[in-house]
Amino acid sequence: MRFAVIGGGRWGTALGVHLGRNGNEALIYDINEETVGKINQGIHPYTEGVRIPEGVRATTSIHNVEDYENLVCALPTQTVRSVFSQINLKGKRVINASKGLELKTFKRVSQIIKEIEQECNVFALSGPSFAEEVSKGLPTAVVLAYEQDEEGAHQLQRAINSENFRVYLNPDIVGVELGGALKNVIAIACGISDGLGFGYNARAALITRGLVEMTRIGVRLGAKKETFFGLSGAGDLILTSTSDLSRNRTFGFLLGKGLSPEKALKEIGQVVEGVKTAEALKELTDREGIYAPITEAVYRVIIRREELKGVLREMLLRSPGEEFSL
Amino acid sequence: MRFAVIGGGRWGTALGVHLGRNGNEALIYDINEETVGKINQGIHPYTEGVRIPEGVRATTSIHNVEDYENLVCALPTQTVRSVFSQINLKGKRVINASKGLELKTFKRVSQIIKEIEQECNVFALSGPSFAEEVSKGLPTAVVLAYEQDEEGAHQLQRAINSENFRVYLNPDIVGVELGGALKNVIAIACGISDGLGFGYNARAALITRGLVEMTRIGVRLGAKKETFFGLSGAGDLILTSTSDLSRNRTFGFLLGKGLSPEKALKEIGQVVEGVKTAEALKELTDREGIYAPITEAVYRVIIRREELKGVLREMLLRSPGEEFSL
Repeated sequence: MRFAVIGGGRWGTALGVHLGRNGNEALIYDINEETVGKINQGIHPYTEGVRIPEGVRATTSIHNVEDYENLVCALPTQTVRSVFSQINLKGKRVINASKGLELKTFKRVSQIIKEIEQECNVFALSGPSFAEEVSKGLPTAVVLAYEQDEEGAHQLQRAINSENFRVYLNPDIVGVELGGALKNVIAIACGISDGLGFGYNARAALITRGLVEMTRIGVRLGAKKETFFGLSGAGDLILTSTSDLSRNRTFGFLLGKGLSPEKALKEIGQVVEGVKTAEALKELTDREGIYAPITEAVYRVIIRREELKGVLREMLLRSPGEEFSL
Repeated sequence: MRFAVIGGGRWGTALGVHLGRNGNEALIYDINEETVGKINQGIHPYTEGVRIPEGVRATTSIHNVEDYENLVCALPTQTVRSVFSQINLKGKRVINASKGLELKTFKRVSQIIKEIEQECNVFALSGPSFAEEVSKGLPTAVVLAYEQDEEGAHQLQRAINSENFRVYLNPDIVGVELGGALKNVIAIACGISDGLGFGYNARAALITRGLVEMTRIGVRLGAKKETFFGLSGAGDLILTSTSDLSRNRTFGFLLGKGLSPEKALKEIGQVVEGVKTAEALKELTDREGIYAPITEAVYRVIIRREELKGVLREMLLRSPGEEFSL
C-alpha cells in the first residue's frame, strides 16, 4: 500500500520505517530540510544504526502527499488543523497517530480532520509504542481504530501488521484517541511523584487511580469503558508512566526535582503533548463537571504554578472510602 | 488495636512497623531467632535506618499470638495451612496479606483459613506495596477486602489507615486475593521479556494482555471484574511488573538472561510466590477450560523447561484480530 506520513518527527519516522519494512511505499513529509535530506540519503535521523528501508522517501512539499490514498498524521496536535487544511483530503483515508486534544475546541485529531473534510475516512493508530523501539523492530502491539470504514480498517491492518508490530482492531475511535491523549497528563503526575522521591508504591497507585480517571472522562465523552483497559488505554499509560524514555514523564520528573515548567520544557527540547492536553482537559472537565483530581493537580502545578508538594499531598490525602465509590 | 503478625519476613515486618507507628500494638511471630532478636532490640532486620516503633515486639512462640484478636497472615502461601493449624482461630479476625494459591487445592489463603476454622472472620490486605517503601513510610495505597464482617472492616480500616498508608475498602475478597496471586505469574513473563531485551513496548503489551487474562480467570472463579482494575489488580500488577524490586520479575529476568529456574531461585534466595502459583494456576485453568496464554507460557518455561524464545515468540505471534475478541 502507499502511505504519506505527515510529520517526520520520531514517531512519524518510526512509522514510515516500519511501513517500508513491511513492503509498503511511504513518503514522509516534514518542514525540516535536514531531516528530509537524511531520510533521502537512507540515514535514520533519530536512531543510530537503523537504515531507512526501500520505498521510504521524504519531502518538504506538502502537496506531494496528495498523490497518496492513505495519510498518516504524526504532527504535534496543535499544528494538525493548519497543516491538514492545506491538503485536499477528499476520499482519503486519514490515520491519526498523534496523541493530544486541540486547545479551546477540545477536539480529538480525527474530529479536526472531519471538520476540514467531511468526505474522508478517519482511523486512529495508538498503543504502547516508543518510536525508538519501533524503529529498531522490537516487538510492539498497537490498536487501529476506525469510525465507519471497517473494510478499510481490515485492509490497513493487513498492510501495517507484521510479526513484530501486531495490529489489533477496535471500533471505538473515541476511546482510542482519548486514551492516547489523556494518559500524557497522568504520566506528568507520575513524573512529579518520582521526582519528589515518593517511590514505586505511590506511582503504581497514581497510575491505577489515573486509569480510573481516564475512563471516567472518556465514558462521559462517548468512549467505551473497555477500551481504556486495552493497549491504547492501560497499555500506553503504563508505558508512558514507568519509563525514562517518555517525554511527559520526564517533564514531570524535572518539575519534581524543582525546575520551573519553562526550564523543564527547554531541557527536553521537544514537544511535550501533555502540557497542552492538561490545559484543554482542565477546561473541559470543569465545563462538563467531571471529577478529575489528577488532571486538576497537574493543571494547578504547571499552569497555575502552585507549590508541588502541597498539591500532590492534598491529592493523596483524600479520605479513603470504598475503592470504587470515588 | 492489637495485632499479631504471623511471619516476620520483609512484608510482615513492614506491616508490623506500620501498625506500630499508627499507634497499634503488634506482635510479630517468626521461627527465625535472629530476626526476632533484632526486632526486640529495636533494629529493623531488613531496612537500614528504620527503627522499630514502640509497641512492636517479636516472638518465636506461635502460641503467644492467641492473645491477639487480629491476626495478620504474612507467610509464604504454601506454609499457611500448617502454621495456622497450630493456632486456635475461633472468633479471631484473620487478615491475609500473603499473595498466592495453594498447590493441589488451588485455594486462596482466606479459604484455607476458613477450612481450618469456620468461626472466624477473614479479610485480605493487598495492593501495590513494596515492603521496603512501607517500612520507610513512603506514600502507599492498599485495599482491605472483607467477606462478611463489614463493621469489622471499618474498624480495621481506622486502625490501619494513615496519611501515608491509605486503606480503601472492597467487599470482593475473591478478586482482591486473586489479583495479588495471579499478578506474580504475569510479572515473571514481563521479567522474561525484559531479560530477552524485548523492550518497553513488549512489556507494556504483556502487562495489558496480562490484566485481561487475570480478569478472565478471576471472573470465572467468582471475582468481580471491576476489582482487577483497582489497586489490588492493575495497581499491584504494574508495580510488580515494572520494578527491579520485585522478586517475581527478577526471577523472570534471570531466566531471560539464560539462567535455569534453579539457578535463578538460588540467586534470589527468597520465596518467589509466582513459581508455585503458575503451577497451581496452569492445572486450574486446564481443568476449568479457561484461556490463559501467558500463564501457559510461563508454565512451559519454568516447569516444562521449554526453550524461552520459542515460547515467548509463539505467544506474541497469535494472529491479531479485534482487540477484545480473545
